[in-house]
Amino acid sequence: MSYPTLERISTPADLRALDRRELGIVADELRAFLIESVSRTGGHLSSNLGTVELTIALHSVFNTPHDRIVWDVGHQTYGHKVLTGRREAMAGLRLWGGISGFPRRCESEYDTFGTAHSSTSISAALGMAVAARNRKESRHSIAVIGDGAMSAGMAFEALNNAGDIEDINLLVILNDNEMSISPPVGALTKILARMLSGSTYNTARRVGEKVLGMAPPVAELARKVEEYAKGMISPGTLFEEFGFHYYGPIDGHDLDALIPTLQNLKKLKGPQFLHVITKKGQGYKLAEADPILYHGVSKFDHTAGIQANKGGGKPTYTQVFGDWLCDMAAADPRIVGITPAMREGSGLVRFAQEYPERYFDVGIAEQHAVTFAAGLACEGLVPVVAIYSTFLQRAYDQLIHDVALQNLQVVFAIDRGGLVGADGATHHGAYDLSYLACIPNMVVMAPADENECRQMLYTATQYPGPTAVRYPRGSGSGAVLSGAPMSALPIGKAEIRRQGRRIALLAYGSMVDVVRRVGDTLDATVVNMRFIKPIDETLLAELATSHELLVTIEENAVIGGAGAEVARFIDTQPRRPRMLRLGLPDRFIDHGDQAKLLASVGLDEAGILASIKAIDQADS
Amino acid sequence: MSYPTLERISTPADLRALDRRELGIVADELRAFLIESVSRTGGHLSSNLGTVELTIALHSVFNTPHDRIVWDVGHQTYGHKVLTGRREAMAGLRLWGGISGFPRRCESEYDTFGTAHSSTSISAALGMAVAARNRKESRHSIAVIGDGAMSAGMAFEALNNAGDIEDINLLVILNDNEMSISPPVGALTKILARMLSGSTYNTARRVGEKVLGMAPPVAELARKVEEYAKGMISPGTLFEEFGFHYYGPIDGHDLDALIPTLQNLKKLKGPQFLHVITKKGQGYKLAEADPILYHGVSKFDHTAGIQANKGGGKPTYTQVFGDWLCDMAAADPRIVGITPAMREGSGLVRFAQEYPERYFDVGIAEQHAVTFAAGLACEGLVPVVAIYSTFLQRAYDQLIHDVALQNLQVVFAIDRGGLVGADGATHHGAYDLSYLACIPNMVVMAPADENECRQMLYTATQYPGPTAVRYPRGSGSGAVLSGAPMSALPIGKAEIRRQGRRIALLAYGSMVDVVRRVGDTLDATVVNMRFIKPIDETLLAELATSHELLVTIEENAVIGGAGAEVARFIDTQPRRPRMLRLGLPDRFIDHGDQAKLLASVGLDEAGILASIKAIDQADS
Repeated sequence: MSYPTLERISTPADLRALDRRELGIVADELRAFLIESVSRTGGHLSSNLGTVELTIALHSVFNTPHDRIVWDVGHQTYGHKVLTGRREAMAGLRLWGGISGFPRRCESEYDTFGTAHSSTSISAALGMAVAARNRKESRHSIAVIGDGAMSAGMAFEALNNAGDIEDINLLVILNDNEMSISPPVGALTKILARMLSGSTYNTARRVGEKVLGMAPPVAELARKVEEYAKGMISPGTLFEEFGFHYYGPIDGHDLDALIPTLQNLKKLKGPQFLHVITKKGQGYKLAEADPILYHGVSKFDHTAGIQANKGGGKPTYTQVFGDWLCDMAAADPRIVGITPAMREGSGLVRFAQEYPERYFDVGIAEQHAVTFAAGLACEGLVPVVAIYSTFLQRAYDQLIHDVALQNLQVVFAIDRGGLVGADGATHHGAYDLSYLACIPNMVVMAPADENECRQMLYTATQYPGPTAVRYPRGSGSGAVLSGAPMSALPIGKAEIRRQGRRIALLAYGSMVDVVRRVGDTLDATVVNMRFIKPIDETLLAELATSHELLVTIEENAVIGGAGAEVARFIDTQPRRPRMLRLGLPDRFIDHGDQAKLLASVGLDEAGILASIKAIDQADS
Repeated sequence: MSYPTLERISTPADLRALDRRELGIVADELRAFLIESVSRTGGHLSSNLGTVELTIALHSVFNTPHDRIVWDVGHQTYGHKVLTGRREAMAGLRLWGGISGFPRRCESEYDTFGTAHSSTSISAALGMAVAARNRKESRHSIAVIGDGAMSAGMAFEALNNAGDIEDINLLVILNDNEMSISPPVGALTKILARMLSGSTYNTARRVGEKVLGMAPPVAELARKVEEYAKGMISPGTLFEEFGFHYYGPIDGHDLDALIPTLQNLKKLKGPQFLHVITKKGQGYKLAEADPILYHGVSKFDHTAGIQANKGGGKPTYTQVFGDWLCDMAAADPRIVGITPAMREGSGLVRFAQEYPERYFDVGIAEQHAVTFAAGLACEGLVPVVAIYSTFLQRAYDQLIHDVALQNLQVVFAIDRGGLVGADGATHHGAYDLSYLACIPNMVVMAPADENECRQMLYTATQYPGPTAVRYPRGSGSGAVLSGAPMSALPIGKAEIRRQGRRIALLAYGSMVDVVRRVGDTLDATVVNMRFIKPIDETLLAELATSHELLVTIEENAVIGGAGAEVARFIDTQPRRPRMLRLGLPDRFIDHGDQAKLLASVGLDEAGILASIKAIDQADS
């Protein structure tokens, strides 16, 4: 296909130079371009189709990049990327060496703030607005935030703060598509839904008009009542309570509504709030019909649509977890499952269907998810918190203060541990072993394969304290899932996978497979460590006497990771073999294919071999 | 003084057996007891005087401990402790071996949930309510939360979730005293204040009555309008929007209001919200007049009141920081200061007065505080986030995702690093060096004394990336603060404080002083490491060739702490002296005097000497 109008736009200035009537053509071309482009690279689709008109309207009304747009989550910025000089770069979207699937400050001056984790935009835009005020710079700061993202506490914290700061030029645009990745949950969703049913509002307004026909002062008071009633029933109340001026809701796919509204808002001072209604997948029938399927896609034929998975492939760890949770719930009535708005991503669809009373999607609310779990655990239930490694960072204090300190039995099923691939630096689960290992009472495990994943999760349900099972994105070795009854692993015991000589390779979780091959090459001992904490002191003491070099290999930051405690223990031993710790380097790692990323940081077979040979030869 | 009625109460059952008319006497005696007791031990005073009647009312109406009361923050639970069998134990409050200043599950069955960090109570009580529902147990779950705590995002997350869960028996009591520790901030404060001024509501109601005199259907519609108007103007709206039934506000010092209201609420199903107005310091004139001064007190004469500090003592690190910030702000217009509701505790009172436009108290909102700082940094300002180590855990993801990943110049001034003393396990800053060291781009420093603290903070303002300066609670060595212009330290360079032989002691921050004395005893080399990250590889390489034993000493979890990276570097060296890492052990540490606590974990002079001798003798 060709996109003649779109191809004339290299920067938003080109967009602003177009005739108003041409913007509709830009929207059509941009939408078609995104469908074609994303079907070739994979990526987020539904959300980007939903923000085509809003993106065009914002860049045509505001003076970007002087005016700052902060896109919450940022997975809806493909149109923004196309209009800000990255149309051709879209061919490399989320690929190794290509542009990111999220805004990044280092990628473009139009990407004012890097996002990916939800609900940061109002805080960041408020910071920019305050800086402009204090520096006496005239600029607009705009946060574009979805209704799902609005359910997170930090969005509330930012609203609460913004309503209290004077003389700021801040516009919050609520992109209300009645969706997060999963269908939205929580009271806020109902509030927004009430806001959209305008009938009650209209009724009240008519009453107001009639009442106004009466004589003062009753009419005057009635006018007030009508205003209050309007405030109550119309969408704005909640946000006006926080000190924002509320406008909307307006149709987010209608440039004739968006552009004049934004032009008017541009003239106003103080915190403004615009409620825009959009539809995920807008303009692509297949995505409109199933926005969850088209939320994040792999390459597909956009004329035929995504084809049903033929099956037969290896199950992902996510699926292994989801199946285990259903099996376990059938066997143990204490089990409940909690997700912070990641029903699909965390493999909880079947559990949610089969155990609706034991399933809790708490919204994008990691902090609450963990303390809620602690409350459940106090009463004898066994909550399983299904969470991505990178999002558990959001609930670190709750894990420490509410779970670990009280030694409560909460199971953290940590998905996406290690490098996640295309989502990149914001989503890698690179730090969990470091930030969990230092917390007292925690038992931390990483499975070498699918069977062991089930076994570790089961072990967690049998252990009367806080546990974490950390597994990677995607599939493992494809170990056959045992139909046999599950049995608990002994806490803190490692497993020797290969007996070798001179060198002992101590591998964690996702690294066990590749390390086994390295072990064959070097005739080294290979240990599946299983437990990051507690460590297997008995085995380590033996290895210290029988080997010359101990190498820890983990898909986690090498700083403070699993190897750090092994080294500390070895330092206490009478005979100290040399230690080498391998893991993720001390830098943020970009997006790209998982295997390529691992190779780039020396965690493939060749890289591990090379690191070992370098230190082994230096010694001999 | 004697407390004849109070002394008859060993459990809440005794309280419930009293005649209703005796409860007023209990309140008087409890208040007098708390003033006397806290004046002897120190502790929180204002908040406990404010909740005397509420505590009595809750325990007399509800069937504790079968019914669950979760006290948010928990510093207002002294009365609760007295009524639940710990009256005599109050003599040991917050002291080594004595009871905690907060609720603790291990201390009493009446302490249903350990609290101390703010805003966890609704999440925990919701978990308990859901567990009761699922287990078909009939019990009430009650969260008591202050208006300050309500400003945190996680309270909002919990409300949002609670309004969406069916068939739960949950009561949230908003203890509205128009105070957090500092005066409250944020839009929510204004909302609550509007709620309390009932006049507008009354006006609207009168209108409604008049309108009701008209003929239907206008009258019917008007009635609806009146209801909406009532909803809008009366206090409940915000909470009713979230699906709670709202009651109040009522006088929280009036047992005749509290008890019947709670009795009525006890009969209702579903999420209930009771708004109670109390006064911090109620019944003790001095505390009523200055609740901030009497928020947390040392021992004092309760008849004379707290006497003005005569001065002359060593300044605390908090004061050193606060003075530095004012000095720095005068010199550099880019500097702004941010606190999550800890103006007094973080030493920002003078800065707030002198630089109101550059001072931001964002409420109890650590997540927002850090991302707001990131937004400010994007625009060229240099935000200084003043935060306690233990509370920075609340903003870990924001530090990683919004600050470090974008390599933004945000200065974290981390107070209360290490053991804090009387506040105990929930407040120790035990993990920051571990959870910060693993994050790329971070520069992490710990000053050995007050002068160096200023110098490190200055260094942070000159470094174009994220930095943390971590200092302990209380005073340091009393190093004279230099009036000379500040100069930046070279990044990642340590300082040799004493040249010795065989053993090198590598000390961090608060440990430098005591280690210096150990060094004299052992004739060991003593290094003030200054930087946790990056480490001084040049110096370490030299020490590795010239010493037999390297000992790292830090007031942080030994797991993943500063010593872990030193050990990893030493493991790469051709000659590897033995390594010993000293720090906080892998368990939660109780409350008590700081010096005693340090001795209990072997971080005093004797303990450090003993640890070194143990390993040194084993070697020789």
